[in-house]
This record gives sequence, structure tokens and C-alpha cells, in this order.
Amino acid sequence: MSDSRTYQITPIGTLSSPFKQKFAIPRQPALVNAQGCIHFAPDYNDPNCLRELSTYSHLWLLFLFHENLEQGWTPTVRAPRLGGNSRIGVFASRSTFRPNGIGMSAVRNLGVEHINGQVKLHVSGVDLLDGTPIIDIKPYLAYSDSIADAQATLLEQNPVPARHVEFTPTATQQLLQQPHDDLRDLIVQCLGQDPRPAYRQQDNNDAKSYHVIFYDRDIHWQVKNGKVLVSAIEQVPQRTM
Amino acid sequence: MSDSRTYQITPIGTLSSPFKQKFAIPRQPALVNAQGCIHFAPDYNDPNCLRELSTYSHLWLLFLFHENLEQGWTPTVRAPRLGGNSRIGVFASRSTFRPNGIGMSAVRNLGVEHINGQVKLHVSGVDLLDGTPIIDIKPYLAYSDSIADAQATLLEQNPVPARHVEFTPTATQQLLQQPHDDLRDLIVQCLGQDPRPAYRQQDNNDAKSYHVIFYDRDIHWQVKNGKVLVSAIEQVPQRTM
Repeated sequence: MSDSRTYQITPIGTLSSPFKQKFAIPRQPALVNAQGCIHFAPDYNDPNCLRELSTYSHLWLLFLFHENLEQGWTPTVRAPRLGGNSRIGVFASRSTFRPNGIGMSAVRNLGVEHINGQVKLHVSGVDLLDGTPIIDIKPYLAYSDSIADAQATLLEQNPVPARHVEFTPTATQQLLQQPHDDLRDLIVQCLGQDPRPAYRQQDNNDAKSYHVIFYDRDIHWQVKNGKVLVSAIEQVPQRTM
Repeated sequence: MSDSRTYQITPIGTLSSPFKQKFAIPRQPALVNAQGCIHFAPDYNDPNCLRELSTYSHLWLLFLFHENLEQGWTPTVRAPRLGGNSRIGVFASRSTFRPNGIGMSAVRNLGVEHINGQVKLHVSGVDLLDGTPIIDIKPYLAYSDSIADAQATLLEQNPVPARHVEFTPTATQQLLQQPHDDLRDLIVQCLGQDPRPAYRQQDNNDAKSYHVIFYDRDIHWQVKNGKVLVSAIEQVPQRTM
């Protein structure tokens, strides 16, 4: 009954996204409008592969958790939403450490572009690292994929935190001096979900200062008086990107 | 930018289902209650992998279109819903012939069972061939996966056919004499979607007789006066199963 063969998969392309590290990538991508772009690998760089794609408002991306593949998997994983100390089964989680390391994410279809012989597909609502290998794209079909009343009891008892996000005068000024139209929204949407480790998330006055890189900008922030306070937005030196 | 490495995947288990051939497997699985059972491969046959799985009403199965893998893929595919003559891009389709041959299907979680050291996961709403290799199971999370207003313009202009299903007295009698509780529902739900080839689906009086096997039963049917008429339900000889 069991099938112990191995099968080979090859990425069809690579996603570029604002997210340079796993930290602060939203666990509720539907709340975030982050944009991404799929660049097709030579074997798949054919506009015919995407014929009629524009008739769908949303798409599924199947991808590889490429940064985790070498670390393998364990039968149970820590659940950040449950405080990080509860362990749940790997198949009861969307953990990035899992057998076969495949992820799936529903995104909005922003359209196909052909530039100098390169096919590109623009999407929004991405929660994927820059450089993620894409292994499939499928149309989102509401009649089979949308189950609005699906229950997830454990998670529903542990809602995602939501914090107000504020900017210091310095950060506000730096925000005006950078080129990414959606950087302010990204910061508000991603940091509002409080990406600190679960054991810290109860702390409304955290002395620790945090960093996250979106695009080429290094965002400095803290949690003070229950709010996320962004104190600086600095350009990352080119050599470390 | 592109990633031309290949990656290896190994099935975590195998699904058993009533569907012995691709023909007549519903394209709208949500309308069908077909049950399936995942038998875990030795490396994944650990109840810990499924800890807290019962807190989710629905699950995603990622699987391989194992019967098609050797036939490869083409940039465009015929779309049965569009009459079979229109060709659309492979990534604008849920075609089973696609790069990497991975499918995804949302199913209802019917629970985990341990029998004689074998872990089994029961699900319903399956639209997968018996023997399908399962490569991942993920909880269905309505907040990220359910997009009720997702548009699929092309398909919405071409609704799935729905036909009334009737049984001859012979078939009615044979239905009573077989052991599968859900066989009648399966027949009504699957054949009601008119699984004939697209070029035949307009034909309300089709002289051709069709067969399909569900479980170990060979179903004989025709389309007459716009209805599906089931004329016989016979046991398939063991040696051909």
C-alpha cells in the first residue's frame, strides 16, 4: 500500500518579495498587501503557460520552504500562536519545517508582464521570502477552495495579536525619503501582528529593540506602552543584501 | 535569479478511495461526499505527527497525479469545462498534466484511527484516485485560505452540467445487494455532473453506453431524454481489480 519511491520536482520560477528574512513575515497574509513578482525559469518562460490567467482574480502558489529544507522535520512542532510551548503534530500545523517542505499561499493576481523576453507574473498578498522557489501556480476556484465555515478551534481560541503601530519623527522623515510606495503599509501590517517570539508577546514594555528588513530598508522598532514604536528606517548597505 | 536545482519528495502515505479510474471523478468535489482513508508510510506512521489534528474541520491534501507523471506537461491544455476545444495555459488550469504533477484538494477531516500499529486518517469529499500518493497534509485555515469572492470568470461562464440520475429496476435491485453504504450517493453525485467527454455533453439522447467503476462495482449508464439512466451495477471480478 505504501509508496516509498522518491519523485523529483524542479522550480518553475522564483519569487521576488520585500521579505528578506523569515522574521516578521505575516502569519495572516490576507491582512497584508505585500507585492511579489514571479520570474519564470527558462523551461517555463513561455507566455502560453499563462494563457487566460487574467480571468482569475486569485491564484495559489505552491512553493518550497527553501531555507529550511536541509534542517528536515520532526513529528511535532512548536505552535507560536499557542505560546510556543505547546507542541502540535507537524500535519496539524503550517510549520515551514515539514516533510517535503512544500508550502501553499493564496495571492491576488495582478497580471502578467513580458519584458525583454522574460515573462513575469505580479501578485499581492505574499507572505514568502524573497527568492522563494515556486513549483506550481493554480487558479483559485471558490467553489472548491473556499470553505468559509471551516473550523480551526485551537487557533480560534488564540487570536493573532494586533498592536497599534506608531512612528517617531525620525522614522516618519526617513519614510518620506525612501522609494518603496508600500513600505509604510507593510510596516503597519506586519509589525501590527507583533512578530516577537511568543514568550515575549505578553510584554507591553519590552526593553529589547528589534530589527527587520523589508526591501532594502532596516526597520528599528520596540514595543512600548502596548504599541509598536518604529524609531528608524535605514538603508541597508548594498554589500550585505 | 532562477533556481534550476531539482528537489526530492517522498510520499508520506497513500490514499484509498472509491475511484478506480479518472473517468467520472467529480470536478466539483465539494458536491460529493466520497470518503477516503490515508495510510501512512512507515517513516510517517507516528500518531504524534497528527497531534491536535482533530481541532480542524477541514484539511488540505497535497498529492501527486501519479498516473500522469510520466506523460509530462505542455504549456497549454484543453479545458473540459470550455468544451474541450479551447486551450488555456497550464497554470490557468487545474489540469492533472502539469510541471511537478502536484495537486491540492480540500477535504473534511473525519478523524484519526490507530489499528494494529497503523495510523489512518479518514477524510471525505475526496476527488482522488485510489492509490494516490499523499505528499503533505495541512490544516485548512479559513482566515487565509477561504476567499469566497474570488472570481474565475471563464469558468463561471461555463457552469458544470447537472443532470438528473435515475436507476432501472435491475440497477435498483443490484444497489440493495452490495455492501457500500454511500454507493448510491456517489453515483448520483458523480454521474449527475455528466462525466462524458465535452463534445458529447450536449447530447441528450446518447446511444453510447458508459461504464465506471466505484469501489468494486461496475456501473453501466447512458444519457436518455436528458437524464442519466443507470442500468446495471455489477461486481467487478476480483482478478481485474
